[in-house]
Amino acid sequence: MADILFRGNIVHAPRFGELQCIEHGYIAVAQNGLVEGVFSDIPDRFADWQVCDLGELIITQAFCDMHFHAPQYTLLGLGMDMQLLDWLQHYTFPEEARFADADFAARIYSRLADELVAGGTTRGAVFSSLHTDTTLLLCQILESKGFSGFVGKVNMDRNSPDYIRETAAQSLADTERFVAQCSLSERIKPIITPRFTPACSDELMRGLGALAAKHGLRVQSHLSENMDEIKWVQQLCPDAKGYWHTYERFGLFGEGALMGHCVYSDDEERRMMAKNGVWAIHCPYSNVDIASGIMHTRRFIDEGIHVALGSDIAGGASLFMPHVIAAAIRSSKLNWLKTVKKEPFLTVAEGFYLATSAPAAYFGDAAGFAVGNPFQAIVVDDSRFAPEGQGERRSLEERFERMIYRMEPCDIKQVFCGRV
Amino acid sequence: MADILFRGNIVHAPRFGELQCIEHGYIAVAQNGLVEGVFSDIPDRFADWQVCDLGELIITQAFCDMHFHAPQYTLLGLGMDMQLLDWLQHYTFPEEARFADADFAARIYSRLADELVAGGTTRGAVFSSLHTDTTLLLCQILESKGFSGFVGKVNMDRNSPDYIRETAAQSLADTERFVAQCSLSERIKPIITPRFTPACSDELMRGLGALAAKHGLRVQSHLSENMDEIKWVQQLCPDAKGYWHTYERFGLFGEGALMGHCVYSDDEERRMMAKNGVWAIHCPYSNVDIASGIMHTRRFIDEGIHVALGSDIAGGASLFMPHVIAAAIRSSKLNWLKTVKKEPFLTVAEGFYLATSAPAAYFGDAAGFAVGNPFQAIVVDDSRFAPEGQGERRSLEERFERMIYRMEPCDIKQVFCGRV
Repeated sequence: MADILFRGNIVHAPRFGELQCIEHGYIAVAQNGLVEGVFSDIPDRFADWQVCDLGELIITQAFCDMHFHAPQYTLLGLGMDMQLLDWLQHYTFPEEARFADADFAARIYSRLADELVAGGTTRGAVFSSLHTDTTLLLCQILESKGFSGFVGKVNMDRNSPDYIRETAAQSLADTERFVAQCSLSERIKPIITPRFTPACSDELMRGLGALAAKHGLRVQSHLSENMDEIKWVQQLCPDAKGYWHTYERFGLFGEGALMGHCVYSDDEERRMMAKNGVWAIHCPYSNVDIASGIMHTRRFIDEGIHVALGSDIAGGASLFMPHVIAAAIRSSKLNWLKTVKKEPFLTVAEGFYLATSAPAAYFGDAAGFAVGNPFQAIVVDDSRFAPEGQGERRSLEERFERMIYRMEPCDIKQVFCGRV
Repeated sequence: MADILFRGNIVHAPRFGELQCIEHGYIAVAQNGLVEGVFSDIPDRFADWQVCDLGELIITQAFCDMHFHAPQYTLLGLGMDMQLLDWLQHYTFPEEARFADADFAARIYSRLADELVAGGTTRGAVFSSLHTDTTLLLCQILESKGFSGFVGKVNMDRNSPDYIRETAAQSLADTERFVAQCSLSERIKPIITPRFTPACSDELMRGLGALAAKHGLRVQSHLSENMDEIKWVQQLCPDAKGYWHTYERFGLFGEGALMGHCVYSDDEERRMMAKNGVWAIHCPYSNVDIASGIMHTRRFIDEGIHVALGSDIAGGASLFMPHVIAAAIRSSKLNWLKTVKKEPFLTVAEGFYLATSAPAAYFGDAAGFAVGNPFQAIVVDDSRFAPEGQGERRSLEERFERMIYRMEPCDIKQVFCGRV
């Protein structure tokens, strides 16, 4: 541990839609792991700091994955010819049930955590299964690998097979235990996680709302993902004002609630999200892979709703966030076409922001490599994307765009998780 | 060179929408490089053949990329915030002009050919630049790496900058020379390649039609890719019955013509394609990346039009065909949603067929690993997609689906290009 100046090609997103690109610049990281500044030249006050020269490599922000299901890691790329509700019954529920087994869970979660961090995803919000002990194990494993964020024990007491269902009372008692134990962790914090309305009785929802209020906890769940799911919610909750209201009436739709998908959120739902400070987590791969639809991301942003990206594995077939960024851009281009160019598509700079600076705010950081942020960063070797070699005529901004579209985990040479 | 039985997990596509999956099966490849059959057990007549045991690896068909631009390889992942016509002016034309330089061309084309073949793309139809000598160089390089297929010197005599434009007379004379020299190659054959209608005068189109007829050559070009492009074609050719007719009236829209994109082909255009035996080459990544739209792939197939896939690099940001297959499936899911479920989306088996057996017919092969086909195959290690290890409970068909969604070039362990 020492004060270090990293020298390299620095790219970060200090504002939505804007990249700052500094060729052969410096980023100062103090021994406490916090960023002290980004510079073109070394300021005098850092004259005696150690320099770590990364040459032509690109230093940029690490990613946050704000919606994914850890126990679905083994299902990546499977069942993609199905839609949400069939896919849950055929693949998801049987697989999640296996996470009752601690040995199995430890093995799979370790591999998942390795793949996440090696792929530059150092923070996020995670759904586990309904099993309390293996969810606690997941927290330990994620923390030990350098990942930080929010993990939820999933709550579900209806409309799933016997082998993957709890009673409301048991679910609430287990959640109390999970919250107490998980809160002891330094980097992983508990989050209240009703699976989604069809899987949670009113009794369970009410209890979870009370728990969230009692402990001052945030909430994550699913919202308006798929037309069949929405119709089902209407049937189950005929008195609700909308899907959003099935959470809101139990205190589960407040400041910092993370709602995955929001593909079909109507005007009222979006208004309530903006008003309550609820986040919309856009999962573009999942929405296409299980044929849910396309979220109107631009509309949410314009309306002042917090938006960030999620891989939603295994609804989405990749957990590598650059893939998810490119998928978000691609989905937005189709919206742009569909709306006769009324909803401008996401630029690369905007897509990147939604996977980095936007969700970093959820963890209390300022945007980009701001002074005082933990150094959450990746170092990328993009040389294989330049067939011309070192003589190529591309700007750092162009190289960065190309990197987002073309990189794979193997191109990431170093990952920093908030400590040096 | 010997007669070999490859043992492994064999997957191939003998019919559209159908995979044959044989766990621990055998594929017999004679020393002439032709397939002699696929078997669950070794038939007596092969008893003395050498066995090459590939264990748990998956043996499947190699890919064909039926529409891509070799001199745009250096542009992969660049300029993706632009649309077609802007992108051509800003990125494509200046870059293609550099391929006047033989040293530069040799260097870039070698890397391209390596990446193609290592990624399992062993056949295809290729656009070069307008430069005859470096196009011949491209043919030599592709052939030397094991790639086979069709290569076209691009023809363009209007609506491009001076530095990347020919006269019609020069373009035709150069094409004659290109055809004569390229025809001497064993694995690479010439194809007549008007860039697209906006770039070709009537005089040039007429001459190219005559050349195609004289030498019995096939044609490749672009068709109905982008709304602005279509309007431009209407302005340039007010007397044409449609975009298709701007080719057809010069004899450039006949049997085996490969037309890239077809995003906005109307009923009449599709009818003429079916009638004339013209192929629609679906380039799903490109159509989204440069925001052109989504081709109605299912409709073309139902109407009996030949359909195959293309990466269209660098309009599309990836030349790895499994990415393109997944992109085709994803685009078809959005069509399925848009058409209120009238156009069923492509299954994994169907998407795979469009990148393998369908285009193989263009080269005279029967579907799948049919007897008498050249052994065009890849061997894939999918073990890293199975976090559970060898004990996992997935069928070969499930493993194959997962492989299509998740594989990267590094997962391909061997590539066979039609010879053992």
